[in-house]
Amino acid sequence: MIPSFNFTRIPQIIFGFGSLCKLFDLILNYGNNVLVITGGSSLERSGKWEEIVANFEDRKIAYEHASVRGEPTPTIIDNYASEFRNKKIDLVIGIGGGSVIDAAKAISAMIPKQDSIKNYLEGIGNKEHDGEKVAFIGIPTTSGTGSEATKNAVISEIGPKGFKSSLRHDNLVPDIAIIDPDLMITCPPPITAACGLDAFTQLLESYVSINASPITDALALSGMKYIKDNIILACSDSAPDLHVRTAMAYGSLISGITLANAGLGVVHGLASPIGGFFEIPHGIVCGTLLAEATKMNIKRLQEKGSLGKMGLKKHAEIGGLLVGEKCIEEKNITNYCTTLVEVLEKWIDELRIDRLGKYGITVNDVEKIANKAGLKNNPVSLSKEDIKEIILNRL
Amino acid sequence: MIPSFNFTRIPQIIFGFGSLCKLFDLILNYGNNVLVITGGSSLERSGKWEEIVANFEDRKIAYEHASVRGEPTPTIIDNYASEFRNKKIDLVIGIGGGSVIDAAKAISAMIPKQDSIKNYLEGIGNKEHDGEKVAFIGIPTTSGTGSEATKNAVISEIGPKGFKSSLRHDNLVPDIAIIDPDLMITCPPPITAACGLDAFTQLLESYVSINASPITDALALSGMKYIKDNIILACSDSAPDLHVRTAMAYGSLISGITLANAGLGVVHGLASPIGGFFEIPHGIVCGTLLAEATKMNIKRLQEKGSLGKMGLKKHAEIGGLLVGEKCIEEKNITNYCTTLVEVLEKWIDELRIDRLGKYGITVNDVEKIANKAGLKNNPVSLSKEDIKEIILNRL
Repeated sequence: MIPSFNFTRIPQIIFGFGSLCKLFDLILNYGNNVLVITGGSSLERSGKWEEIVANFEDRKIAYEHASVRGEPTPTIIDNYASEFRNKKIDLVIGIGGGSVIDAAKAISAMIPKQDSIKNYLEGIGNKEHDGEKVAFIGIPTTSGTGSEATKNAVISEIGPKGFKSSLRHDNLVPDIAIIDPDLMITCPPPITAACGLDAFTQLLESYVSINASPITDALALSGMKYIKDNIILACSDSAPDLHVRTAMAYGSLISGITLANAGLGVVHGLASPIGGFFEIPHGIVCGTLLAEATKMNIKRLQEKGSLGKMGLKKHAEIGGLLVGEKCIEEKNITNYCTTLVEVLEKWIDELRIDRLGKYGITVNDVEKIANKAGLKNNPVSLSKEDIKEIILNRL
Repeated sequence: MIPSFNFTRIPQIIFGFGSLCKLFDLILNYGNNVLVITGGSSLERSGKWEEIVANFEDRKIAYEHASVRGEPTPTIIDNYASEFRNKKIDLVIGIGGGSVIDAAKAISAMIPKQDSIKNYLEGIGNKEHDGEKVAFIGIPTTSGTGSEATKNAVISEIGPKGFKSSLRHDNLVPDIAIIDPDLMITCPPPITAACGLDAFTQLLESYVSINASPITDALALSGMKYIKDNIILACSDSAPDLHVRTAMAYGSLISGITLANAGLGVVHGLASPIGGFFEIPHGIVCGTLLAEATKMNIKRLQEKGSLGKMGLKKHAEIGGLLVGEKCIEEKNITNYCTTLVEVLEKWIDELRIDRLGKYGITVNDVEKIANKAGLKNNPVSLSKEDIKEIILNRL
C-alpha cells in the first residue's frame, strides 16, 4: 500500500534555455530594491553579470551586490544579514552554485532576525527558525545541489570542532527557482562531475529512502534517467551541448525536490562530518563514497531476507535504469544490484573523482568521522564498523 | 531536448489513512474562525462530520458551516462570499467531492472581493483575479477531480446559454491538501467510477499534452499506474479495501498536479460546453468520451508522419502501462495505441458509464457543442468534424 506521506511546497519553477530573462519582470512583483548574492567571478567572466546589471538599470531596479566564496560560514551569513538588515531589501536573489544559493537563502532568512544564524542551525543552536524571510529567488549555475528547490541552507564551519549543519524551514523553499542551462555551459569538468554526482546521489538516496513516496519515486527515477544519459557527456567535449546541460540541470532540480521530501541516506550522513572537519567539496565527498555506500547498503539488505526485499528491488531498478533495462524480474534483482555498483564505480573512475586521502583524510580520522556520521533515511541500518569500512575503502 | 517549462506551486500535501486528524492542529496556524464548506449529507451519514465538530469544540475553534449541492454556480459563490465577507474568516476548509472543493476554493477567493465571481471567470468576465484569498485547505472525499491540487475552480451555469468556466490564479492552489482515503471508503460505485475516469482522463491528457514536461510525465505515469490497477476494484466488492482507495486517492491527487502544470486535451475541451448545456456529471462526460477521443487523436497523429511520432509513442506507452508492458519498441507503437483504446473501451463498458443520450443529448445538439468545444493542449489538431464524430459516437 502507498504509505502515508507529506509533500512540502516546491518553488515556482521556470526551467529552460534563456529563462534568466524572465527574472526581471518577476522582480517587480516584489519591489524595487534587490540584494543579489553571487559567487566568485565566473558570472563576470561569462558576461552574464554585465547583462544582469544592464537589465537592472534599464528597469530602474536598485540593487545591492554581495559575493560569497566557498561554502558559507555562520560569520559570512551574520555579517551580510546585519549589513542589509536595515536596507529595506524587497527580494534576495542568489545566482551561483549550491553554496551561493544556500548562502543567499540563509541571508534572506536571517535579515528579519536580530541574532546569529548559529542559534538556528540544527544540532548547533537551540532556537527554531519560524520561516519568516525576505522573498527569495534561486538561480543555479551548476547542476548539483538542487538547493534551488530545497527548504534548507547548509552552513559550515570547518576545523577540528567543525560542522556542516542546516537552517531549515518549509517556508525557506525559494519562492521562485529559475533554471537556465545557459548559465551552466561554462562550468568546468571537475565541478560538473562532482556536482552531477551529488545530484545523482541525492536522487538515488531519496529513491531508496525509508521515507520515499510514489511522488518522490516517480520524480527520482525521472531525474536519474536524465543524469545517467548525460553525466559523462557533460564532462567531455560535449560540455557546451545545451541538450546535455539541460538534462543535467533537470536532474539536479529534481534531486532538490526529492531530497526535500524523501530525505537522504548514509552518503549524506557522512558528508556532514567530513565536510565539517575537512575542506573538501561536497560533491567530491558524495561522489567518492557513493559506490562503496551503495555496495554496503545492498550487502546489509541482502542479509535481512524478506525485510530487505523492497530495498533491494529499488536498488535493482536503478541498476536496470543505468543500463537501459526497464523490466526487472525478481530472479535478476541480485544481478542488477551488482550492475548498479559497477556502473557507479565506472562513473567515479571515468569522472576522476578523487579519493578522500587527496584532501588529507587519513586512517586516523576514520573513527572521529564515523562517530559523527548519521544514517538519515538510509534504507537499512548500518553499524559503526560498516560506516568505517565505507570510509576506509575510499581513503 | 527537455523543452522549457514552468511548474507552479502545489499545496502542502498530507496524504494517508487517518490524515484528517492532522487538520485540527493545522487550523491553529491560521486563526480561530473557520468556514467549513461541505456537500450533501454524506459526511453526516458517515459520522465524520460529528467527529470534526467534536474536534472543533474540543479545541475551541469557532466555525461557520455552509453546504453546496451539485456543481457550484456563480449565484451560490456570490451569496456565500457576501454572507461571510464581514465575518473575519481566518480559513476556509472544503471537505467533499470536486464540486465542493471548487466551491470552497472560489468562496475563499471571493470573500476579499466586493463584486460577482462572474466578472473574474475565464471567457465570461473581463477582470483578472489577483490571487488574494482567505487561506484554504482542501479535503477530498472522492477520487476524482484533483481539485485539491489545482489553481482553478470550475463554476457552472447550466442552460441554453450555459457555461462551465474557471476562476484561475496560481495563488488559488490550496495552501494545504489533506487526502485521507478513509473519507472515500463509502463513495458509491457509480460516483467512484465516474470520478476515477475523470482522474484517469486528466492524467492521460496531461501526459500527451503539448505542454507536458518531464516532471508532469513522470507524475502522470505514476498516477495512471495506480489507477489502472485499482479503478475496477474500487467499483467492486473491493470498494471498502483501503489499499484500493488509497491508490485511487493518489492517482486523483496526481491528476490535479499534472493538469495544473501540463494542461488537458479535447475531452476536457468538450466537457466545458457539454456541462454548460446539460446537467450531466463531469466524470461521466470525461469517462464516456475518453476512448473515442483517444481513438481520434491516435488516428490524426498517425496521419502526421514523423510529426505525430512523439504523440503516438506517448499513447503507446500508456497502452503498454495498462497491460503491464514497460518496454515499447518502435515497431509495436501502433499495436499499443490500439491496446490503449481497447482497454479504455473495456473500462467504460465494465464501469457502466452512460452514453450522452442518457442525459438528453441528441444529434441536434452536436453542432452547438462542437461550436463551443476547445482543444486545450490536445496533442494534435482536430477539425470540427472530428469533434462532432467523437460526440456522435457516444450519443
